[in-house]
Parts: sequence; C-alpha cells; structure tokens
Amino acid sequence: MSKVDLKMLATQLDVSVSTVSKALRDSHEIGANTKARILEKAKELGYRPNPYASYLRHHKSKTIALIIPKIDNSFFLQVIDGAESVAREKDYHLLIYITHEDAEKEKSLIQHLQNGRVDGIIMSVSLKIGNYNYLEDCIRNDVPIVFFDRVCHEVETVKIITDDYASGFVATEHLIKNGCTNIGYLSISDNLSIGVKRKNGYLEALNKYDLKFKEENIVKCSGDDQENYENIKALLSGPEKVDGIFAAVELFALNTYNVCRDLKIRIPEDLKVICFSNLHTAEFLNPSLTTIHQPALEMGVMAATTLFKHLDKKKVPMVNENIIIKSTLEIRESSTTRREP
Amino acid sequence: MSKVDLKMLATQLDVSVSTVSKALRDSHEIGANTKARILEKAKELGYRPNPYASYLRHHKSKTIALIIPKIDNSFFLQVIDGAESVAREKDYHLLIYITHEDAEKEKSLIQHLQNGRVDGIIMSVSLKIGNYNYLEDCIRNDVPIVFFDRVCHEVETVKIITDDYASGFVATEHLIKNGCTNIGYLSISDNLSIGVKRKNGYLEALNKYDLKFKEENIVKCSGDDQENYENIKALLSGPEKVDGIFAAVELFALNTYNVCRDLKIRIPEDLKVICFSNLHTAEFLNPSLTTIHQPALEMGVMAATTLFKHLDKKKVPMVNENIIIKSTLEIRESSTTRREP
Repeated sequence: MSKVDLKMLATQLDVSVSTVSKALRDSHEIGANTKARILEKAKELGYRPNPYASYLRHHKSKTIALIIPKIDNSFFLQVIDGAESVAREKDYHLLIYITHEDAEKEKSLIQHLQNGRVDGIIMSVSLKIGNYNYLEDCIRNDVPIVFFDRVCHEVETVKIITDDYASGFVATEHLIKNGCTNIGYLSISDNLSIGVKRKNGYLEALNKYDLKFKEENIVKCSGDDQENYENIKALLSGPEKVDGIFAAVELFALNTYNVCRDLKIRIPEDLKVICFSNLHTAEFLNPSLTTIHQPALEMGVMAATTLFKHLDKKKVPMVNENIIIKSTLEIRESSTTRREP
Repeated sequence: MSKVDLKMLATQLDVSVSTVSKALRDSHEIGANTKARILEKAKELGYRPNPYASYLRHHKSKTIALIIPKIDNSFFLQVIDGAESVAREKDYHLLIYITHEDAEKEKSLIQHLQNGRVDGIIMSVSLKIGNYNYLEDCIRNDVPIVFFDRVCHEVETVKIITDDYASGFVATEHLIKNGCTNIGYLSISDNLSIGVKRKNGYLEALNKYDLKFKEENIVKCSGDDQENYENIKALLSGPEKVDGIFAAVELFALNTYNVCRDLKIRIPEDLKVICFSNLHTAEFLNPSLTTIHQPALEMGVMAATTLFKHLDKKKVPMVNENIIIKSTLEIRESSTTRREP
C-alpha cells in the first residue's frame, strides 16, 4: 500500500486537496457533513499527518535535543531515561547527540540545530568549551537551552544542578572523619562549573579541619584511562602517603581501584575512596564503593519539564536561575571498613 | 536577530524569493554572478536551510530512530554509542525511544514513525511482543527496519545478532568444566529469540556432558528486582544444591549476588556464576564476574551502517539475513577461584 496523504484522500473522496486539508484542520469553511466524511475516511485509511508539512504550518518540530559529552557513564544514562519519559508524555521526540568532549563539534551542532529541527535543547557542556557566544546566539534565535550538571553560568537560562559544593565538602569531611589526613582529589577540568565547585568543597573541608592543602594532591584526570592510571599511580607512589581519595567522577574511582590492585594498596585499610557516581553496581564492587549519588533521573525529568514549561507558553523568556536537586552520601566499605567475608 | 530565511535574503539582495531558492539549489536558470552573490550573502548572514522545508522537496528527514526496550543496561548503552557515531558521520540525526518492554507502546510508536519523521529504524523488540504485523507494515510503507539483539525472525529484513546459541553453550560448558553438575539457568522471556537460543545452548551443553536437565533449574526472570530476588532465592534454597548459575542478562547476575550475600552463599566456592554482560565494572565486582561479552558497540555500528547502505541506494530491498558478530568469554573469579586478597 502506498502512503496515505492528502492527495489520496482527496481522490478517494472526490474533493479537492485543499478541502481535505481544511477539513482536517477543522476549518469553518468546510461543512459539518463533508468534514465528518473526510475524517472518517482519514481514520479508515490510517492517515497520519506528515510532521514536516505540519511544521511548515505550525512552526513546531515537536522535537527536542539532548546533548551530552559522553555516554560511558551511569549518570548520563539516567538523565536520558528521565528526559525521554517526559518527552514521550508530551508527545515529543528526543534527539540524542554525543559530543565526545569535542567543543568544536558541540558548537557546530548547536549552530545547526537552530534551523528549525528542534524546539529546544537540554545539554551538559563538553570539557574544553571556551567561548560561549554560540550558546547565547542559539537562545536569542528562539531555540531555548536548559543546562544540567555541567552548566555554563555565563549564559542566562535555567540550570539544573546538584549541590556540588556541599557534596564535595561532605565527601571530604566523610574521609576526614574516617581518619584520613592526607587526601588526594582526582579532579575533572577546572573549565567546568562542577569541577570548580567540587574542588572548592574539598578545599573548604580541609580548611575546616585544619588540614594543609597540598597542590601535589590534586590530580587532573581526563577520559583517558591509561593517562589517569599513570597519574594516580604517581600520586599513590609519592613520598607522603596519601590515605584518602575523593574522585570527582566514577571513572577516576575505577582507575584508582586498578592502581591499588597493581600496587597492592588495600582499600579501605591503606586508602579510603569516595566518588561522585550513579553506578548500580557500586554495592557489589570489591570493596563496595562509597558514593555521592546524584539525582540523575530527577535531573533529566526536571530539565525536560522546565524546557516544556517554556515551550508551552512561548514568548515567556527563560528565567536565569539555578534549580538545585540534592545528592546523597551512600556510605559503603571503600571509605570505612571491610565487611567480614 | 530574527531568523535568516529565503525571504530575508531576497529582500536584502533585492531579488525574488524564487531566485534565491533556485540559486541555493544550484539551478541552471540562475546566472553565475547572481548565484555567487546570493551564496555569499547566505554565508555572511549564516543562512541554514530549514530541514522541514527541505524534507518536502527531497522527502528525506535525515533522521533515523533507535528503539530499545530499556536503558538500565550496559549493552544498550554501547549500542547507542555505536549507532550515534555512524549517524553523525552520515550527517543524520538519531531519535531515541525507550519502550520499557511495553508492546503496545512499541506498536503505536512504529505506526507513528511511518509519517515521514524518520527514514529508517534500528530496533530491539520488547519482551511481550505478540503479533508482528505492524513491523511488516512499516517496512512495506518504505520505512526500513534493521533489528539487533532481540530480533523478530518472522519479519524479513537484516538482523544483527551475536552467536547466542554458541555462547549459551560455551557459558554452560565453562561452568561444567569448572566442576558444576547442577546448573541453574536464569532465563529471559521465551518470547525472545535470544532467550530461546541462549537456553538451547545451555540445554545442549548439559546434554553433551550427560547432565540431567531439570525443569526446576530454569528460573524465569524479569525486569523486577524484587521478583527476581525471590525466585532466585527459592532456587538456591531448594533441596538439591545448585552449584552453578548461568544468567541470560547482567541484571539477573546482580540479583544473584544479592541473594548470595543474604544467604551467605560464597561465590565461587559454593556457587559459580556466569552471565551475558557488558558491564565495565565486571572486573571490580566482588568477586569479579565472568561474562559473555557481547560486541555491543560493533552491533550498533553495524546496524546503523547496514541501514544507511539501504537508504543510500533506495529501492534495493533489504535482504533477509542474519549478520552475526561473535561474543567472547571473559573468565574472572566468579566462575573459577577467588583471587588472593
């Protein structure tokens, strides 16, 4: 069977295409009987309006984009789940783009998406983002952006974040209360708001408990396992024994587990470990991993809900605000004591 | 700045909209000088053709859909990564839909997507799928479908699968060679091709090694953690001691770890465990988990590549074939012996 379109309906009903089109849009120019006859036939043949033709009439793509820097991470996974559920409820479609931390790719993507393909964007920025103008241009061109997690504070819009500073403090304080006095911080780029805030929480906790901050205890990590492995190994082989590790993202904690295995450093006996993570296997790791659990699903839901609120009543500008959903400390063996086997 | 469209270009250049449109399509009706002038202005103002208007001319949405049954699973995550990378390379957009194992949702989605929103579909079917007609209708309506993993063998098209039968055999044989004689199988629905094949591999291995098949050793699992927990607990508390578990998907292995912890069953001493999984934390679990590692990323890449091959040279019908990418056995502690601490 060929596709059912306006023309086919018109031929079968022996009316003009324009009559069919008007009837389907419930125009007052078409009489009630004709309208009923057309609607019935459309239903019978399974007519589905073409979204592209529909776009040209209503200027709505019924599509939003979710842009994430990477996908090998339980946090972003749960965000997708949350955003998708809201989009589906709203009868919207969700495009996924992964920038792989490439700022140039992110820029060209954002520019491209202003051509009407999407009604709005939910995004977490890439690591190496520099100049933010293209994000502001996008919003000015009437394609609103809601940030989540890795936000861009310079751009005026809604940002869905967790309490990164407070959580960084809580994580570090937890290590201190469990006896750590020389704590390493495995940092994500200082280019990112979350990187800066988590680090500041760490610094504040050291300060509160009169522990000396040492520049050499900060290890800049990346998405490269091998590089992280070498850098963490250097930290843990240093002259002053590091007894605690706070990792800004879960990958760095797994890299630490690798190093400890090879250097025969026992977790938690010799080294206590805590990290930001949404791993559903955290409790089964050896040892089970203490985490700062981010409300990832909730952040995805909130980001999409906020975007739709704006899309629903157009022309209301997006308010410049931070919506903060709190993370929770989930204490397990890696930062305390090993469970009896 | 308002959006740059054909009309704005025409006004600024003092030519007709039709001239601009023809020039941008490189029509022979427009002289070289005018064309150059229009292209330059379009570039200067950052004109981006509207995808919806473009669709109506070319009948291509430049969009494909990826439909998955759930997202809390490392396998599907890597498939998204693979499919997204191919789509981007092809300058295509990727829509994501999660059916949450709801066959009705899947059906209505597939029907909806035939309205021109996408050029093709990559999908893994939901658990409770019954009648497949709507999938055949979709392909007949010129929206090709490529299946991966959970395929529908009744529908004639390309299916990207792994060697589920052989892998099920290898997994079970591995347990037998490590001393197991009473092996439980945690099964995914018999409605799914992968469920049937993995189970048949298990049965064949039992047969080869003269082990008796016991109906009560098959536990039907689902996406419900609590239900799985209870069913696995019943199996492991039974009168005849089960000494090996082959789990069809990773969730069931994690459920098993939970039960063993609570019943104080030691893995691997009392019970050996193996499962299909792509968990990147498998090596860090306690004990580290032996897995059948599926080529998830490769399957995502292959599914997208195959779909694009078809889209590129339209009208060539999709061949009814299975493309098999092999899984690998990754032996760790859970099925052998515990590493020294």
